[in-house]
Order: sequence, then structure tokens, then C-alpha cells
Amino acid sequence: MEITKLIEQISQKKSFLCVGLDTDLEKIPKHLLQEEDPIFAFNKAIIDATHPFCVAYKPNIAFYEAYGLQGWNSLERTMAYLNEKYPEIFTIADAKRGDIGNTSTRYAKAFFEALSFDSITIAPYMGKDSVEPFLEFEGKHTILLALTSNEGAFDFQTKEIEGVELYKEVLKVSKTYKNAERLMYVVGATKATYLKEIREIVPESFLLVPGVGAQGGSLQEVCAYGMTKNVGLLVNSSRGILYASTGDDFAEAATKEAQKIQAEMEIQLEKIHN
Amino acid sequence: MEITKLIEQISQKKSFLCVGLDTDLEKIPKHLLQEEDPIFAFNKAIIDATHPFCVAYKPNIAFYEAYGLQGWNSLERTMAYLNEKYPEIFTIADAKRGDIGNTSTRYAKAFFEALSFDSITIAPYMGKDSVEPFLEFEGKHTILLALTSNEGAFDFQTKEIEGVELYKEVLKVSKTYKNAERLMYVVGATKATYLKEIREIVPESFLLVPGVGAQGGSLQEVCAYGMTKNVGLLVNSSRGILYASTGDDFAEAATKEAQKIQAEMEIQLEKIHN
Repeated sequence: MEITKLIEQISQKKSFLCVGLDTDLEKIPKHLLQEEDPIFAFNKAIIDATHPFCVAYKPNIAFYEAYGLQGWNSLERTMAYLNEKYPEIFTIADAKRGDIGNTSTRYAKAFFEALSFDSITIAPYMGKDSVEPFLEFEGKHTILLALTSNEGAFDFQTKEIEGVELYKEVLKVSKTYKNAERLMYVVGATKATYLKEIREIVPESFLLVPGVGAQGGSLQEVCAYGMTKNVGLLVNSSRGILYASTGDDFAEAATKEAQKIQAEMEIQLEKIHN
Repeated sequence: MEITKLIEQISQKKSFLCVGLDTDLEKIPKHLLQEEDPIFAFNKAIIDATHPFCVAYKPNIAFYEAYGLQGWNSLERTMAYLNEKYPEIFTIADAKRGDIGNTSTRYAKAFFEALSFDSITIAPYMGKDSVEPFLEFEGKHTILLALTSNEGAFDFQTKEIEGVELYKEVLKVSKTYKNAERLMYVVGATKATYLKEIREIVPESFLLVPGVGAQGGSLQEVCAYGMTKNVGLLVNSSRGILYASTGDDFAEAATKEAQKIQAEMEIQLEKIHN
């Protein structure tokens, strides 16, 4: 998907919400466990319930791999459903992959071609030749980890590398990669004030912001520091929407929660034009 | 598997060879494509042909994911075969995963429990709480990327973070993680001289060394700088063994190639006792 289509979606839906599909058999409503494919049944219901209020879905690949063949099958079915029924919605494989060249190409084919994802999250540790194979795919996007929202982010990411914090060095160096215009970045919302300095390095790039909601970030702060004239933000919520209710009314509860976030986003979006 | 069992294997087989299972449908002998599961058929033949000369197998997970459900199924069958027929052999999921806590736990379950791998490769970028969930599993090992063998390693890994190269900082910081005794490290053989300094930080840890062979490292150098009294090395070869021949004699050719490397390793191992 071209970035202009994503921006159009945001404008139409007045939302930059990404719904994280961290689907967990231990948390979904018990009655779904009788379905032939409970993970897909849950995802389908969540997607149908939330699609008017979001512009992206982000399956967390670990949750599918944990169930082996069955999980991989549920992931394939979820992607087929999304791409057939809601092709206008941006899809993110939250996979955090990254390996040497020919191996990265394999991962890119797995997610961009076999599963038809629009984008994938990638770890930067192995550098240029581990990232560029993903960037070769036209109409696909690579979302590089810059500053993550977890405590371990302080182990390396915020330490200074030749006078600049490592996460900023990742931003700077990655801008020199071939097809760098297909890059987006993961920036944790728990450190919204960092966004100001990040925007000095990548003024236009889309940022995927996890951690609003369960992980404690503030939407207002993220927008104050991170929003561009093209919005430039995808803000993710997973558990808050998926498990808003664990009863029979889980889909309705998910709709309400997504709608609530969309309404907050609409207020923030109005600020762009003022 | 406990580390003592791996050391026993090395001593019995006079080898510290790891065979990388980077199985590629475009490279395996054409006649195998008629098999119901060509990837498994190839892996099984390679394993049967090379097991006397190696102590570890390392499926490169990207190569399986690239084939979707079919690939995942081949991976499951390969692991079931290995664990049933050759349970004494150490297995490595070359997955380069790493995510926030609850997601890392999912990956750990996928590879350590569902697929019964003995170990997994992990990227360190997200720090402590992305690595420790893997370290919780008793008898399992986490192989952290330190210094990789690709060109992109110079983007970040070799840059100085507060006066120390990032890869050394990764070694130092990771030693403070809970259950750090279950850590091993990836160190690319193309930079064997770095091993001397690495051994000053992690004198005892096992190092997984890719890049001897196709990627151009020298076994002798790796051993000169990296070997410990318990060997402390697993040296990987993938393509050189798997595709030693692409004809009907591929298994015999793989045997010869593995045996050749084992013989070189035997010479190096004799140096420990001299």
C-alpha cells in the first residue's frame, strides 16, 4: 500500500488507531474455544467490530507462532480475511525480525508476499544489509525499532554512541539506506517528550507508537510532540480493545473502546488545521 | 539440554561443528521436489548423513517461514525427527527474535516447548526485559547476537557506546541479567581477532560462530582466539555442507564435507590438552 492511501484512510476515518491483534487463547471469551479455529473467530469478530474506527491492524506474530501450525494457519486466515474484506486497511506484521541479507529476503517474502502484509517491524542491530532487503519491496514498508516502550530500552537504546543516543544514531544511519523513504519507526509512547528530538531527525516519517493505554502513554502528549501535517502517527492499542470485555459482549465492548479512542484522535487531528 | 551434555558430545565426536539447515527449495536436488514434503526429506537425508560429525543443528527459521504453513510443518517434522532419533544433538532455532516481556515469553514457548529446541538466537536491542523471559527456561539456552559477520555489523555494533564498542556493552550488560549462565553469544568468524577481547569479557561462555566457510572465516584463527578449556565454541557451516553437491549424491557429498571439517576440528581440539 502506498503511504498516500494510508493518509487518505486517516483523513476519512478521522483516526490513526492501529489495533494490535495479540490474540491469546487464555484471554478470549470461553465460548469461542468451541469454534474450529478460535483465534480466527476472535480476530474476525474484532475486525468486524472495530474497522470503522481504525486504519491499521497489527498481528503480534509471537502470539501465532506460540500455537505452531494451528497459529500460523489462523494468521493466514486473518490476513486473507483482512485483505479481501478490508483491503483499504494498513497491515503490520509485528515480527521484529532482522538477519543477514539472504535470510532477511526470506522473511520479507514470508510477510510481504505469502501473507500480503503491508509492513513489518524490524530490529536494527545487524545494520544496513539486514534492513535493505526489506526496503526493496515496492509499496511495502519497514518499521524499524528506534526507541521501544519497555524498561530494557535503557540498556542500550538511550546510551550515547559517539555522542548521540543509540536510537538517534539508528534514525540517522537508516536515513542513508537505499529506499529509505519506505521506512517508518517504532517509538514508545511512554517517552513522548523524546518525540520532539526524534522529529528533528525524521520530520516526515510515520511513527508507530505502542504503549498508549495499557503501557501508560498519553495520546495528547504523543500528538503534541509527534504529529506532522500528514499526521505521521499510528498509535496502537491491543489489550485495551481486545479484552475490553471477556464475556459474550466482547465485540460490542471492543467497538466502544475503539470508538472512544477514535473520538480522542479526532480532537487531536483538528489541531493540524488550526 | 544441560551444557555438560554438549561438552560430552564435543569430546566424543571430536567436533564442535553445527550444521545450519538453511533449506532452500531452489537449491535442493530436483528429484526431491517429487516428495510429499521435500524440505523434510532433504533435512532428514542431511541429518542422517552428517550426524556422526556434528554436535548441533541450526534451522534458519526464515527459510521455513518463507513457505508458510508448509514450511512450518517441515520445521516441526525436522525437530520431531531430530529429537526422537538423535536426542543427544544440540538444536538451535536461528530466529533472532526479541520483543517486550509477554511477547518474548510467547516466542520462548514456541521454540523451547512446542518445537523442543535447546536454544534460540536473540537480538539484544530491546534489552533486559526482552531477553530474560527466554532465560527463565531451565535446560534451555539463549544465544544473544553480539558481533555478527555481516557488513552491517559496522553500522552500530562496533561503534563506541560510552567508551566501549556496543557489542562489548551487550556482553557486559547481559552478564548482569537473571540466569545469565544460560547465555551464549553469536560472534562472526570474519572478525576472529575480536575474539581475544571478547574472551576477556566472557571467558567461559559458548560462542556460536557463523561464517566459517562461505562467509570466509578461518577455523584456525577462531580457535586460536576463542577456544576455552571446555572448547566454548560451536562453529557453523550451512551452504558448504547442504549444497556440496546438487545431484543424487548430495548426502554423500554432505558427509564428506562435514567429515572434512570435523577432521580440522579434531586437530584444533588436540591443542587444548597440549
